[in-house]
Amino acid sequence: MSQNTVEHLSESAVVDTASVQPFPRSSKQYVQGSRPDIRVPMRSIALDTTPTEFGGEHNPDVRVYDTSGPYTDPEQKIDLRQGLADVRRQWITERQDTEALEAVNSDYTRARLADPELDALRFAHQRRPLRAKAGKNVSQMHYARQGIITPEMEYIAIRENMALAQARELGIMDKQHPGNSFGASIPDEITPEFVRSEVARGRAIIPANINHPELEPMVIGRNFLVKINGNIGNSALSSSIEEEVEKLTWGTRWGADTIMDLSTGKNIHETREWIIRNSHVPIGTVPIYQALEKVGGVAEDLTWEIFRDTLIEQAEQGVDYFTIHAGVLLRYVPLTAKRVTGIVSRGGSIMAKWCLAHHKESFLYTHFEDICEIMKAYDVSFSLGDGLRPGSIADANDEAQFGELETLGELTQIAWKHDVQCMIEGPGHVPMHMIKENMDKQLECCGEAPFYTLGPLTTDIAPGYDHITSGIGAAMIGWYGCAMLCYVTPKEHLGLPNKDDVKEGIITYKIAAHAADLAKGHPGAQLRDDALSKARFEFRWEDQFNLGLDPDTAREYHDETLPKDSAKVAHFCSMCGPKFCSMKISQEVREYAADNGFGVSDSGEDVIRMIDVEAEMQAKAQEFRDTGAELYHKV
Amino acid sequence: MSQNTVEHLSESAVVDTASVQPFPRSSKQYVQGSRPDIRVPMRSIALDTTPTEFGGEHNPDVRVYDTSGPYTDPEQKIDLRQGLADVRRQWITERQDTEALEAVNSDYTRARLADPELDALRFAHQRRPLRAKAGKNVSQMHYARQGIITPEMEYIAIRENMALAQARELGIMDKQHPGNSFGASIPDEITPEFVRSEVARGRAIIPANINHPELEPMVIGRNFLVKINGNIGNSALSSSIEEEVEKLTWGTRWGADTIMDLSTGKNIHETREWIIRNSHVPIGTVPIYQALEKVGGVAEDLTWEIFRDTLIEQAEQGVDYFTIHAGVLLRYVPLTAKRVTGIVSRGGSIMAKWCLAHHKESFLYTHFEDICEIMKAYDVSFSLGDGLRPGSIADANDEAQFGELETLGELTQIAWKHDVQCMIEGPGHVPMHMIKENMDKQLECCGEAPFYTLGPLTTDIAPGYDHITSGIGAAMIGWYGCAMLCYVTPKEHLGLPNKDDVKEGIITYKIAAHAADLAKGHPGAQLRDDALSKARFEFRWEDQFNLGLDPDTAREYHDETLPKDSAKVAHFCSMCGPKFCSMKISQEVREYAADNGFGVSDSGEDVIRMIDVEAEMQAKAQEFRDTGAELYHKV
Repeated sequence: MSQNTVEHLSESAVVDTASVQPFPRSSKQYVQGSRPDIRVPMRSIALDTTPTEFGGEHNPDVRVYDTSGPYTDPEQKIDLRQGLADVRRQWITERQDTEALEAVNSDYTRARLADPELDALRFAHQRRPLRAKAGKNVSQMHYARQGIITPEMEYIAIRENMALAQARELGIMDKQHPGNSFGASIPDEITPEFVRSEVARGRAIIPANINHPELEPMVIGRNFLVKINGNIGNSALSSSIEEEVEKLTWGTRWGADTIMDLSTGKNIHETREWIIRNSHVPIGTVPIYQALEKVGGVAEDLTWEIFRDTLIEQAEQGVDYFTIHAGVLLRYVPLTAKRVTGIVSRGGSIMAKWCLAHHKESFLYTHFEDICEIMKAYDVSFSLGDGLRPGSIADANDEAQFGELETLGELTQIAWKHDVQCMIEGPGHVPMHMIKENMDKQLECCGEAPFYTLGPLTTDIAPGYDHITSGIGAAMIGWYGCAMLCYVTPKEHLGLPNKDDVKEGIITYKIAAHAADLAKGHPGAQLRDDALSKARFEFRWEDQFNLGLDPDTAREYHDETLPKDSAKVAHFCSMCGPKFCSMKISQEVREYAADNGFGVSDSGEDVIRMIDVEAEMQAKAQEFRDTGAELYHKV
Repeated sequence: MSQNTVEHLSESAVVDTASVQPFPRSSKQYVQGSRPDIRVPMRSIALDTTPTEFGGEHNPDVRVYDTSGPYTDPEQKIDLRQGLADVRRQWITERQDTEALEAVNSDYTRARLADPELDALRFAHQRRPLRAKAGKNVSQMHYARQGIITPEMEYIAIRENMALAQARELGIMDKQHPGNSFGASIPDEITPEFVRSEVARGRAIIPANINHPELEPMVIGRNFLVKINGNIGNSALSSSIEEEVEKLTWGTRWGADTIMDLSTGKNIHETREWIIRNSHVPIGTVPIYQALEKVGGVAEDLTWEIFRDTLIEQAEQGVDYFTIHAGVLLRYVPLTAKRVTGIVSRGGSIMAKWCLAHHKESFLYTHFEDICEIMKAYDVSFSLGDGLRPGSIADANDEAQFGELETLGELTQIAWKHDVQCMIEGPGHVPMHMIKENMDKQLECCGEAPFYTLGPLTTDIAPGYDHITSGIGAAMIGWYGCAMLCYVTPKEHLGLPNKDDVKEGIITYKIAAHAADLAKGHPGAQLRDDALSKARFEFRWEDQFNLGLDPDTAREYHDETLPKDSAKVAHFCSMCGPKFCSMKISQEVREYAADNGFGVSDSGEDVIRMIDVEAEMQAKAQEFRDTGAELYHKV
């Protein structure tokens, strides 16, 4: 044990045990790609056989998209102090366009590494950072535009195509409702070439810093599954490094596709190192937060040099995307003065203050091409921040917001000129009927670069429930074409989320994203709904729980009223009791129909014709009545 | 104290103390109509003055629609054993078209009243039920069609017009976004005559049984505020009478506009009496549930006579609307056989079973005009049940569902022929892109009779979170024109809701309904959003909590991170801490803009022109920098 009063994290850090439990009846499976080191994880949920009275058939395993990473793989030895195993190192090395640096390029990083007082906090295994060789661009977009399909792209194609391939195998593709995708171009099959072409044209991004080899590649774009982001991060007032790592593993367990570290408190450099080294999902940050810490919180004192050093510091740690509020132009700032809630983006308000104080455009805007040079040397993606997003229903879709969006569209073109990947952040607080205008305008201004929105919140009147006010808007904008939804927790506007809040926010957003996939008609998306509903109809309670987004909560709720194990095979539930069970009655209707030749034809007319055969029916009715006494099965 | 082992409820029943607490800084106010006994309750929320640094202005009280009834009025003495005071008795009497019956007309009621074993459970103060005099129709629709504006209609006009009148007083009507109401006819002012005309044409209903004089009248229709319903009710497996009354007072406290009692367990007659006598909101039921209990749970044994007696039993107790699944026709039943989840409506499955067993159309359909005669003798409104609603995404919008909807449209015309009020129930499980078709088809088939939907749930994969999967669909269909949203709790599909679940479901649906009002552009709807957002911007924490749908939870969440009272006036919050507060920074931007003449004009051009005055700006920038040290106010 450490003899210091402050225990060394590099000796003491342990993974949250709740985050490493396998999901019930689930196994981690890997689908291999064209080479042995492309191993795409998925979660496979085993189901019970249908009870005999419902047909007795075998129910195939259901495979679901898996964001939980190595943490739910019992074969993997998890040690936070070591960090995760590399997934991508070999792919990056093989491209021969990077070099391992002798030393870090950030002054700040150097100072932190040299400070012995930080030893207790420091992640022990510092690696030499990679950077593009001189003149090279290591972005996935650059490769895509050269026609190169990277292992990352192939990995993603397998990952995204999974539900579809499964639906095809099972012959159930035709059972899904055709969606309405509002002009998206979702293919019938997600191929590596499709991933490449989407990245090449800027319609999708693969956030994947060369210094984050632990990453399991994923894609963000309107023609892929809708993704969700979970925010973590300490503030000046609370939270430790271990708590933040715990929120990372907990948030990805429940479905976060990316995590943003929004720390503004102490030791955010060290916190970030722990997070990235233990993260299998892309990590995003807002570098201006840390830059502001470096100047003691005085926005006017920010400089390009300090900001640049911060970008390099974070890029060499492995941050996968940067929120950069380069669209906050001087002329937009006074447009916010009449608003009910002014500027609510932290980054936006910092830059607005800087612009006013210096009366010039921010260094984010004037140095945008310099920033692009940094981004492409590490493959950091832009997440162009909406610093002027509306913070209330009253301020939705105003001239400040849409002015900035137009500027973000111009900046997107500059990023693309540099083959730098780019997505665009969006609001905020927007009533339902004004959401689609946001999506349409973003698609138009930003050339279909992926949109990444916070909610939007559809009303301001429910503090404590803003995961729900915003989940409504998130589902809708996801349907309209938004590529990633930034979660909101119940603590929004009120406090920092704890673990329960993180889970509540993630599940809410997983619902929104999936509802959007269904509405877009994403191929195979309905598979899980159908499997769960079939389980529900057949009273396979365990399967119903396990196919859900949160098996633990579903089981717990069920057990509150009917706790006995026997109730898990009960052919009724606590809501109606055995006599009133509509599921049971409709199973009887089904059996009756099958026995009598109804409804087996795909043609509704046949069914109706037979119903019209009055005499025959009278006989059937008697027969049904005669056997009716046995309709309620005893448990 | 009672000497029996079973305590007599008529002596022991006490109101849930949590339901009778006044809301923080809120007072119950009554707006008087054209006569002294028209006293419309509303909740008035007092606000703090804006802090000096934000302008120091007075903030007027915000009045909100109040469903909490006498329970939150400290002037009222609540005694569950006595029931609530009458609101409507005099209005009903004055119409001189009713008579107090010598005895109840239901055989079942008589038997229950005569059973001494039920004494312990019985509500003590049995009144003589009212019924229409021979040849009279006492429905609000009948009066409306005669051109009569009833006190109920005037009461409703005041209630619905409140937010609008308030917005006018404050001169803030023009600040609300124009909505998109999809062809609704929402007027600028809700007058008693408008209420009458909407009821007359069947586009709105006023559920108000003459035997429920305790009722505070409310309206359900697409041109009024969107309403929500909360379900309560015991089952064979759980729940006592007191628990059900507690759910009633608790559910209406948080916003339920109507309550459905879906009991299927023991003593549902007595439970219902307690509920109605203590309910200020309309009570709906599904009479077939109780009828089925009366025949020992054997659907085939149901008869018109038993059902008729049940309707009369409940109508004479004061039930305000009946769900009646008269659209489940024989020919639709086999269409459900191919479904993933068959028939999921309890009432629908009971009737389907009956139809198959007897091979004829149900007595609900064949006796529909007889039912109308009962309805108009007590003014019970129809809620035409969607017995064939989809129970899974896969089954959405199928031929069984839409076939039944067409039949409900035909039945609506029959009800209207009898001047009987009528709304239509809707699904269920529907993916987002198929929701609007439901609304459009309902409007078309049912002549704009109010639609009343369960959710719809937009995905099947989240048991434990179906308040959220359905809250998304509910908000959307409310926007599209749905008049009332039937809540779903987190326990949906899993178990019976407890008090926490009831509250969670109600708040979720209050959010959905309000988001819909905003999107429809309901006049005055944005007032509360604007007031809350202004409070948020000005760090009036208490006001932010109190203006929210759930002040208790908002306060509790805030206090988890910043528990001290001083933090309630802190000009920052725990999310960002004092340095990163965008609200503070944007207040500075606002002050700066005001001081320098920006943004005070309503014309954006002025603002931009001034910005272009480069030289002037340079000076301003210096000035801003010079005063910048004082930007962060000390708490």
